[in-house]
Amino acid sequence: MIRAAVVGANGYAGAELVRILSGHPDVELTAITSRQYAGNAFDSIYPALSTVIDLNFIDNDTETISKAADVVFLALPHKASMGMAPALLDAGLRVVDLSADFRFHNQAAYEAHYQPHSCADRLPQAVYGLCEVYGQQVAGADLIGNPGCYPTSVLLPLLPVVKAGLIDPATIIADCKSGVSGAGRGATATTHFCHVNESFKPYKVGGHRHTPEIEEKLSDCAGKPVRITFTPHLVPMTRGMQSSIYATLAPGVDAAQVRSCLEAAYAGRPFVRLLPDGRWPDTLNVKGTNFCDIGWAVDPGTGRLILLSAIDNLVKGAAGQAVQNMNLMVGLTETVGLDAVPFPL
Amino acid sequence: MIRAAVVGANGYAGAELVRILSGHPDVELTAITSRQYAGNAFDSIYPALSTVIDLNFIDNDTETISKAADVVFLALPHKASMGMAPALLDAGLRVVDLSADFRFHNQAAYEAHYQPHSCADRLPQAVYGLCEVYGQQVAGADLIGNPGCYPTSVLLPLLPVVKAGLIDPATIIADCKSGVSGAGRGATATTHFCHVNESFKPYKVGGHRHTPEIEEKLSDCAGKPVRITFTPHLVPMTRGMQSSIYATLAPGVDAAQVRSCLEAAYAGRPFVRLLPDGRWPDTLNVKGTNFCDIGWAVDPGTGRLILLSAIDNLVKGAAGQAVQNMNLMVGLTETVGLDAVPFPL
Amino acid sequence: MIRAAVVGANGYAGAELVRILSGHPDVELTAITSRQYAGNAFDSIYPALSTVIDLNFIDNDTETISKAADVVFLALPHKASMGMAPALLDAGLRVVDLSADFRFHNQAAYEAHYQPHSCADRLPQAVYGLCEVYGQQVAGADLIGNPGCYPTSVLLPLLPVVKAGLIDPATIIADCKSGVSGAGRGATATTHFCHVNESFKPYKVGGHRHTPEIEEKLSDCAGKPVRITFTPHLVPMTRGMQSSIYATLAPGVDAAQVRSCLEAAYAGRPFVRLLPDGRWPDTLNVKGTNFCDIGWAVDPGTGRLILLSAIDNLVKGAAGQAVQNMNLMVGLTETVGLDAVPFPL
Amino acid sequence: MIRAAVVGANGYAGAELVRILSGHPDVELTAITSRQYAGNAFDSIYPALSTVIDLNFIDNDTETISKAADVVFLALPHKASMGMAPALLDAGLRVVDLSADFRFHNQAAYEAHYQPHSCADRLPQAVYGLCEVYGQQVAGADLIGNPGCYPTSVLLPLLPVVKAGLIDPATIIADCKSGVSGAGRGATATTHFCHVNESFKPYKVGGHRHTPEIEEKLSDCAGKPVRITFTPHLVPMTRGMQSSIYATLAPGVDAAQVRSCLEAAYAGRPFVRLLPDGRWPDTLNVKGTNFCDIGWAVDPGTGRLILLSAIDNLVKGAAGQAVQNMNLMVGLTETVGLDAVPFPL
Repeated sequence: MIRAAVVGANGYAGAELVRILSGHPDVELTAITSRQYAGNAFDSIYPALSTVIDLNFIDNDTETISKAADVVFLALPHKASMGMAPALLDAGLRVVDLSADFRFHNQAAYEAHYQPHSCADRLPQAVYGLCEVYGQQVAGADLIGNPGCYPTSVLLPLLPVVKAGLIDPATIIADCKSGVSGAGRGATATTHFCHVNESFKPYKVGGHRHTPEIEEKLSDCAGKPVRITFTPHLVPMTRGMQSSIYATLAPGVDAAQVRSCLEAAYAGRPFVRLLPDGRWPDTLNVKGTNFCDIGWAVDPGTGRLILLSAIDNLVKGAAGQAVQNMNLMVGLTETVGLDAVPFPL
Repeated sequence: MIRAAVVGANGYAGAELVRILSGHPDVELTAITSRQYAGNAFDSIYPALSTVIDLNFIDNDTETISKAADVVFLALPHKASMGMAPALLDAGLRVVDLSADFRFHNQAAYEAHYQPHSCADRLPQAVYGLCEVYGQQVAGADLIGNPGCYPTSVLLPLLPVVKAGLIDPATIIADCKSGVSGAGRGATATTHFCHVNESFKPYKVGGHRHTPEIEEKLSDCAGKPVRITFTPHLVPMTRGMQSSIYATLAPGVDAAQVRSCLEAAYAGRPFVRLLPDGRWPDTLNVKGTNFCDIGWAVDPGTGRLILLSAIDNLVKGAAGQAVQNMNLMVGLTETVGLDAVPFPL
Repeated sequence: MIRAAVVGANGYAGAELVRILSGHPDVELTAITSRQYAGNAFDSIYPALSTVIDLNFIDNDTETISKAADVVFLALPHKASMGMAPALLDAGLRVVDLSADFRFHNQAAYEAHYQPHSCADRLPQAVYGLCEVYGQQVAGADLIGNPGCYPTSVLLPLLPVVKAGLIDPATIIADCKSGVSGAGRGATATTHFCHVNESFKPYKVGGHRHTPEIEEKLSDCAGKPVRITFTPHLVPMTRGMQSSIYATLAPGVDAAQVRSCLEAAYAGRPFVRLLPDGRWPDTLNVKGTNFCDIGWAVDPGTGRLILLSAIDNLVKGAAGQAVQNMNLMVGLTETVGLDAVPFPL
Repeated sequence: MIRAAVVGANGYAGAELVRILSGHPDVELTAITSRQYAGNAFDSIYPALSTVIDLNFIDNDTETISKAADVVFLALPHKASMGMAPALLDAGLRVVDLSADFRFHNQAAYEAHYQPHSCADRLPQAVYGLCEVYGQQVAGADLIGNPGCYPTSVLLPLLPVVKAGLIDPATIIADCKSGVSGAGRGATATTHFCHVNESFKPYKVGGHRHTPEIEEKLSDCAGKPVRITFTPHLVPMTRGMQSSIYATLAPGVDAAQVRSCLEAAYAGRPFVRLLPDGRWPDTLNVKGTNFCDIGWAVDPGTGRLILLSAIDNLVKGAAGQAVQNMNLMVGLTETVGLDAVPFPL
């Protein structure tokens, strides 16, 4: 049994980790932490888990966690994560960090969009945990920068076609839409039911911090600097993320080549589902699952490629992918603990 | 391995049975049927299950089913069920029927609200599958009338206090609310998004057919005829059912006695969660689970008892309870296949 | 032109008053106040009104308001209202108070559920502004206690049948449901989209402060003390309130007498719509309007009366009724400013 | 008084026309038609309008309509409209057609995406009723092709910047999102609450018939053929449409020039609201109104222009713009009947 701890288990991604890990057959969930709720029962915050999860939050104490766990999931805001990770790594734990703190190889890019990095010396050892792409590096890693939800939904459909040179990377536009759980558990004007219901809107236009994260991975892959346009939008629903990605095809490339490319990239990868022609991703079909559904079309009028994806922002976009990373790190089958049968509706 | 078949697997309750049974460790799902979709893949109707459920619908053929399965779940409209059940029973299968056809012991009551019964001779052998109340009879049964969703949500909180004589059964009023999945998969004016969204409304006031079902079980329990007032309402959400039940307490009875009574009735029953004082059921906390959450209060001004419950209408109100019945029928632990960790949100 | 001011115009009821009053042909909206947003434009909080409402919030200053307005609407929390009302009245303004501070004639009942009353000497002059019932007193009043949303939805269907002796007032149970805007503009755990969506739940069971308000008016009407059971519930929608009210009919009373009674009570009252037999109120049909739709049935099994109503909690349950009260106070036609054609969906 | 008729008043756009026209001070609504509901009261289909609209549907009879009305609104599916329009025009009526039948000047483009045109000789006299752009031609027209909802939301922000040469028209991508009312009143798998709720999805990718409509107007404006990429998506809400439009800026153009261009184009146009920098359109802010809110940003990483708009698909995207067209045709102030104060939420 792997002993696991979740730091910041009161947030939505943390709570989702608690859900997945407590149902994981090879994991014992030994500690959950929360500064705000230390001493309280998990189910006092998430009563759905009453009688199922019998754990109290403890404080975010590095030493206690180090003794209790082999793997630790940091579900903290960025900056808080990099404050805790070094001590946990030094104590021999494997760390899966859900913040942005270890997602960048380029320290300057991180610092331009977040803040000064307090343990930049750890960045080289961190692996970007987009499992279907960087799975081999994940297997040997002790520190994972778990991808952002938007980057996951954009990079999975995009990276193989960029790598294969099927599109012109200078033309990429990602129009992305997220359910409200992506805004977190904080009660704000943004998350008030009456402001979300019957509302659809873009936000942080031209300025979301997932842009440089996506760009770094695309640039690595393209072998040259890639800048994209990325616009996030808020959808009146709890879970789910859908991305519609536009790019100009390289000369002579057609839809069949896109299919071949994606099929080759994701052959045998259980969490990526490539849809048949004429079917497109729907967030309802991936709700509560670790799937990323991918569809596409070549626009007949302009010849542009339209790549479409859907994930559950809290699962494949956060906690599910984090557990998938843990599975790969410790040598388990990738799907264990993540293979519940999806709800039909 | 138990071989199971789901008849009418295209409807919502049937699809939910497919979900639960395909994740059940002791079950092999061998056949799913649908008149309308025979020959089509299950995931053509429920694409969420793509790559997970690799079954095609077959026609509702009694002989084929009899050969393929040990237990059959009939997720059909009433009338259709009683047309199929006898042959399946004669072939030695155990039958869990989700329609109303085998829920009544009183043939006249059934016929007054539904239609003439075509195999009333089977009614005596049918057990009303409200597991926490009739579990012992379920264990020896080969034909289960799986309770309606409203009756489940009303009877679980109510039967113990009626049996214990804590309330006056002549005063019972059940004000119940259901999500839209209770109306089924049919596209109608009732289920159109634009008619449901921002709409809350009662329906079938004074005339819903779950009334006599509830009354028969209450009467059995009270030892005298009981008539209740029951009003269903439609809530703009997909899953969930909440019931608020009012009754006059017997002289001298207080809230503590209600707690003792319910605790005694449901001690060791894993799917009933009795909430602490001052906490009340919320459909969000039971979504996707087989739980029935129960809370209550004594109204300080009038001394009336208010019993409150919440279930997922498709799980404890339909498919989950059906599988729970199967578990009891074949001697499995009650919870097997139904113990996924709930979603925190 | 009547000069009107809205105090507390940043809250939902206040903002709805701004909407209605700025479209009112006989009103000039001269001042809107907000402690929190003084100096800011109204449309910085409610951008839907951009280019339409060109007013800045000012501070809640009694003197300024007194000079600017003939009628003032207090859309403040209780306690704050009674701190402002006396000075405004003394300055000769008419006051419509949307808090609970002037709804009770019985000071002790108010103080038992709220706090000590700081100007109880004003209570005798205050009129309870349920327009269809107390319209004559409203016409001569200078201080209105505008009814709560739940009391409006419960009293309109109930008062006539209580007054006519058609039901036993000791048996009244009101099961009521509200959209989220009733919880106000504050961002809290209760109003977070992810906690409301797919959630239906009771709250404040046996303890909501609208109970004594309803009871006082019923008692006045019945000529004896009446206690009721009242349970509020939260519905995942923005606007709307539906009440299902149960009571035992007096001997010999039938549904036709209920219709006659209600028709007589509301003849010529434009905002009460009595539905035909077999049709029941739906919040969608009153959204954005000042209507109260009322339906009913006699439960065939128990002979109980079921009264059903629907209102928009922010209009007939708050701002709309407040303007209706103003119309009556100043001698305008009751419907002026409140007669926009409803949205079909 | 202008006598107006609505043909196809049972559909959502037709019902919205009934709402607006019956509140219009200069209009008498003399006839509403519906093949399916002829003889029934309007409020039997739309009970929200009970006691407000006292009209029965009549059959779609050209002669009756011609006698009853001066202006007729055709809220019919395409093909049906062109079957009725000629006779109505010949009888001297002004016709505002909400279908696609008279939106195209290029008959071949229409026929490539719809069907053979039965009265193509009328196309030259038809004016495309995008009021803020083609208002002068509208004023003299007797036949209006009322724009589609998507084209309205795309063309209003886009046409001025195309006309001014600020962007490269070959690079336009429109990612658009619609509420469910856009799918119409028909009960289908697409509009079932349980398939829409918690679902966000693209549809008709690369194949929506609003594409050629948008392209024709852009091409006219650019003076050369323009092809665009347009992807529609379905949002779990009733009303609202949001478009995010991407294009490469012409060399040297910046955000300030975009603002100048749009301000010049829409100076004095009451229904277009240009948002300040850093604010973006939200469907909630235009719900129930004839506004088109427009915002934009220049993406700092790529220099691309992002134009953003929001409308109510049933108002500015259909019925509201149709009435605005009528106002212009008959010489009324553009806003009359369309100037209700918006709801703050």
